[in-house]
Amino acid sequence: MDNVIVHVGCPSIMDSKDLAAHAASCGADAISAVCPSFVKPSSLDALVLYLQEVASAAPSLPFYYYHIPKLTGITYQINDLLGKVKQNIPSFRGVKFSDVNLMEFSLCVHAYKEYDFLYGVDEQLLGALAFGAHGAVGSTYNYLGKITGDLVKAFEDGNIQNARNIQFCIQEFLIYVFDMGWGLPEFKDIMSLFSGIPLGPSRLPLVSSIRSDHHDAIKDRIKKMDSV
Amino acid sequence: MDNVIVHVGCPSIMDSKDLAAHAASCGADAISAVCPSFVKPSSLDALVLYLQEVASAAPSLPFYYYHIPKLTGITYQINDLLGKVKQNIPSFRGVKFSDVNLMEFSLCVHAYKEYDFLYGVDEQLLGALAFGAHGAVGSTYNYLGKITGDLVKAFEDGNIQNARNIQFCIQEFLIYVFDMGWGLPEFKDIMSLFSGIPLGPSRLPLVSSIRSDHHDAIKDRIKKMDSV
Amino acid sequence: MDNVIVHVGCPSIMDSKDLAAHAASCGADAISAVCPSFVKPSSLDALVLYLQEVASAAPSLPFYYYHIPKLTGITYQINDLLGKVKQNIPSFRGVKFSDVNLMEFSLCVHAYKEYDFLYGVDEQLLGALAFGAHGAVGSTYNYLGKITGDLVKAFEDGNIQNARNIQFCIQEFLIYVFDMGWGLPEFKDIMSLFSGIPLGPSRLPLVSSIRSDHHDAIKDRIKKMDSV
Amino acid sequence: MDNVIVHVGCPSIMDSKDLAAHAASCGADAISAVCPSFVKPSSLDALVLYLQEVASAAPSLPFYYYHIPKLTGITYQINDLLGKVKQNIPSFRGVKFSDVNLMEFSLCVHAYKEYDFLYGVDEQLLGALAFGAHGAVGSTYNYLGKITGDLVKAFEDGNIQNARNIQFCIQEFLIYVFDMGWGLPEFKDIMSLFSGIPLGPSRLPLVSSIRSDHHDAIKDRIKKMDSV
Repeated sequence: MDNVIVHVGCPSIMDSKDLAAHAASCGADAISAVCPSFVKPSSLDALVLYLQEVASAAPSLPFYYYHIPKLTGITYQINDLLGKVKQNIPSFRGVKFSDVNLMEFSLCVHAYKEYDFLYGVDEQLLGALAFGAHGAVGSTYNYLGKITGDLVKAFEDGNIQNARNIQFCIQEFLIYVFDMGWGLPEFKDIMSLFSGIPLGPSRLPLVSSIRSDHHDAIKDRIKKMDSV
Repeated sequence: MDNVIVHVGCPSIMDSKDLAAHAASCGADAISAVCPSFVKPSSLDALVLYLQEVASAAPSLPFYYYHIPKLTGITYQINDLLGKVKQNIPSFRGVKFSDVNLMEFSLCVHAYKEYDFLYGVDEQLLGALAFGAHGAVGSTYNYLGKITGDLVKAFEDGNIQNARNIQFCIQEFLIYVFDMGWGLPEFKDIMSLFSGIPLGPSRLPLVSSIRSDHHDAIKDRIKKMDSV
Repeated sequence: MDNVIVHVGCPSIMDSKDLAAHAASCGADAISAVCPSFVKPSSLDALVLYLQEVASAAPSLPFYYYHIPKLTGITYQINDLLGKVKQNIPSFRGVKFSDVNLMEFSLCVHAYKEYDFLYGVDEQLLGALAFGAHGAVGSTYNYLGKITGDLVKAFEDGNIQNARNIQFCIQEFLIYVFDMGWGLPEFKDIMSLFSGIPLGPSRLPLVSSIRSDHHDAIKDRIKKMDSV
Repeated sequence: MDNVIVHVGCPSIMDSKDLAAHAASCGADAISAVCPSFVKPSSLDALVLYLQEVASAAPSLPFYYYHIPKLTGITYQINDLLGKVKQNIPSFRGVKFSDVNLMEFSLCVHAYKEYDFLYGVDEQLLGALAFGAHGAVGSTYNYLGKITGDLVKAFEDGNIQNARNIQFCIQEFLIYVFDMGWGLPEFKDIMSLFSGIPLGPSRLPLVSSIRSDHHDAIKDRIKKMDSV
């Protein structure tokens, strides 16, 4: 059975709270939020107050903090954050951790066993699994879902060499498209392509560099990989 | 006579266009926008497309690009941007330039005499005046307006030493409050304090560190400076 | 039997070559070098030329490139570097990889099976082991050697949970000393303390914050950990 | 009459002291040093200790600190540094300030009138002159000396518009060569070309991209500018 976690983080806390309440009214399973980052939180305590306020707009839903410092520039240590969150946000349930600092990730996993830690740097998921990640959330799983499931299973079965080979296969694909300059709009195009659900183009200032006559070649490459 | 320039830049281009149209309907004198930055523009051309789309929602209003790379991480050279803007955005009128790279600023001022270049790093306005800034837009001018007017006048009168002394006086105040950790919420509090207009507190995750029993001391310090 | 790898990277290539030749004359087992970084290499090709020139001063010794982008700011992808190195440096043997980008690490391990990849971010060694690291080089191994050996053995035995626990134990120690502000000079002091070899103080501008009356407490804490 | 300031900053403090003593024995007029930056100073106090130790190796020579945070990553505020330097280094005479933060520059010029502040970002010298720079030290002055002298004179004569035009002319040249990818090795080549003194090629990992058949074109372009 699928779970739907609705992302509600907006630059305006009023919008975030509206989205949180709307998610609750629609039957979402959980909500998640990044912190506004155009202007950074005044302090770690201010970040906690923000999360508390958003979570309180949907108190019945599990709340996940979305940590992605490369995009937000918000670099407070998550292990420091969790100590304060624990005392203040009863609906807090975990973190989507999108960073390469695996010491920080490990410190969280060990010290906060009551929370979920879902890893978000798809290209090195295996590293996070080694440190005890409870799951993974990432855009590539929309079209590399089967092969990633195989990776997780290989790891859980203790077959590290197989897990490495699968992760390498995913990395080879990603380095290939990164070298072509792919970013969010191109990855969104692939999602439409694979799901068959018309997601529409990215909005400006994002512009995809994929031309429609490349679609078949991309589909072939990904399908081949997913059947490894 | 005052001019009102409405800032309309939002993470969603739909919101930005709505605000632009609303500004036109309200009789604003001009609009201005930052580019969305949580996800960066795909390219310089994509940034131009974004600005073009927003400007087109209020085609009768002069349009200013708000360049503040320290907050947005968008670092395309403005002199490169302007060549493309010129061909594509008829209502383009200038740049709020909030960066310390004065070579880039100077290249713009010299090569695009048809546009306004308004400087936005208040603490070193004198440097931009030396390079031909046409004006200044900044938050400190809400409470340091008179003294800054004196600075500009001293510079225009060729009295550099006097301009330096005034700028130094402003800097001394700013380094004093920066060292206390002031940021946006504290500066917003000062605006309320000086204007008498109740602007309300900053929204989360911004929290002011000014306690109300400090208000008189702050007022005294600024008033003393503004009467230098 | 121990192997001695002599680090020879200096800002001056002449000094680097002298040290390389000296290492060969002394019977070192291998040499290693960072690239000068006060001024960065002109290009990836220039970096290869530099490494080639240094390696050629001790052609009989295996050569390791020391990749530590957080200190050097040199961020060329190592998988790109190795393609060029392979054709130009016969004595090249591997990389000390001190970075948290494990995709790049994995790409190297898979594509260049003829080289050694020794991991250098001690606090997340387990992540690199998952990707197939052949070994580890780091300062903490001077006093956390036994416990780290246990970590590697647990991993090799397929006992991931045990490896995690050991790595967490090391991380807890490191976060504790990082939070006290420890850096290179403090870690050097510990090495003297544990080895019994008087290494002398760090040279300026490094100054240790450890007072000698803390030595016993530090020794106790580390000994307790090493006997986990 | 020319003054010779010898740069003595090395990664090893022993080398720095040797060079300082050597400079004194050769009759240099002053010495200057960057702080080692591959590993950063432990604290502002440690930086002062380092400078004090180097200066003490040539106590009869005026000592200048070379502040270039973009290369060193050492970002202590110079106005904070000077308070400590003043009490500890009797031979201290000033700063080569190679940064675009002109508030910090201005705070130094005003608060430490006993020291010289020589600006080092050639492409925006005019901004520093506006804040009271006492001079300029930069590599471009080896071949753009006359035109820069004209800039300084125009500024001192109160002819700001003329100073702007000259600075713009220099900037146009620099943006032209920056856009071609020029860096240190290319600028060194120009020095040889103009001085007639054979300075030799840059050492690895620096490689110049200038081909010798371009020398005449470069000479022409610079000569034309220097006769503006």
